[in-house]
Amino acid sequence: MINYPNRKKQTTQTSRPSSTADRGMGLEHDINLTNAYYRELDRAVIHKKPTPITVVKVDYPARSKAKISEAYYKVPSTTDYNGIYRGQYIDFEAKETRSKTAFALSNLHAHQIDHMQQVHRHGGRSFLLIRFSALDETFLLPIEALTHFIATQTRKSLPYSWVSEHGQLIERKITPPLDYLNALDMIG
Amino acid sequence: MINYPNRKKQTTQTSRPSSTADRGMGLEHDINLTNAYYRELDRAVIHKKPTPITVVKVDYPARSKAKISEAYYKVPSTTDYNGIYRGQYIDFEAKETRSKTAFALSNLHAHQIDHMQQVHRHGGRSFLLIRFSALDETFLLPIEALTHFIATQTRKSLPYSWVSEHGQLIERKITPPLDYLNALDMIG
Repeated sequence: MINYPNRKKQTTQTSRPSSTADRGMGLEHDINLTNAYYRELDRAVIHKKPTPITVVKVDYPARSKAKISEAYYKVPSTTDYNGIYRGQYIDFEAKETRSKTAFALSNLHAHQIDHMQQVHRHGGRSFLLIRFSALDETFLLPIEALTHFIATQTRKSLPYSWVSEHGQLIERKITPPLDYLNALDMIG
Repeated sequence: MINYPNRKKQTTQTSRPSSTADRGMGLEHDINLTNAYYRELDRAVIHKKPTPITVVKVDYPARSKAKISEAYYKVPSTTDYNGIYRGQYIDFEAKETRSKTAFALSNLHAHQIDHMQQVHRHGGRSFLLIRFSALDETFLLPIEALTHFIATQTRKSLPYSWVSEHGQLIERKITPPLDYLNALDMIG
């Protein structure tokens, strides 16, 4: 594991009790900063989609803005991020795992995998960003590789060794924090 | 105005008191059905993005699923719909007006116009779907035309005559209800 100058190496998992939520937000935060950086440089136009929510009840308290008072999270049918880069449609999902050895496929919904395969069939570039938090490593994994894994393996999780072989490790920087388009360029 | 066999002509505006909301949902509903049809035929992969909402408070009542008890609508920074068609990135916004004479530009946020112009610069196809509800006509207007209008005109609304000249009228059918990709093909 490389020790990045801007990140303190954590000695134990328990040093950060709320790490699951933090780490989840960590990857999303890194991607959002990176996308803002890409837009700033006019390198790509990629945004996170809003979280799908079913609104049940809306209050309109005395002319102030509408307040949603009952709503529920929905299961997403597509991915979290999409946009355009080098004239190509880009569509991806980002996930973190605390495991050092494998990424459980239960982290993905069947609809999301179908969607990414559809995008690929239509000529778009679709992939996963998988972060192994405990190793501080994030990989770009093309949907083609995942499709092949699912078609040929019975395992319900992607071994770390397989991800590191079939995925492209994304370099961590200060700006942007997660240059995944560089990794995409390297795959070609 | 053409009288479509599957639509009852409305004699007066007041015959449908909640028509503003209904009409708004009408266009969205037509687009959602059309997108589902395109996906079913594997012609394109285009989805509506979820409505952006800021969640303030979430309750977890006794092991049942999370209930959002306080949230607010956010101003969207991008458009409502995007995806891929013929290998190209597609990105558009859909709006209705009850006016028979003009579409007010105040219906669009400055961020949305910027976003559509960015997409166009990156080689994607970006456009507006504008429905004149009272005329039952929906036009596809490329962002290039809107950009030109804004650069050369001082008016704060697009006259119906201008939209019908620079936009492509979308044929209404039963299936799909709003074949806007056909209109896009016609523009070329």
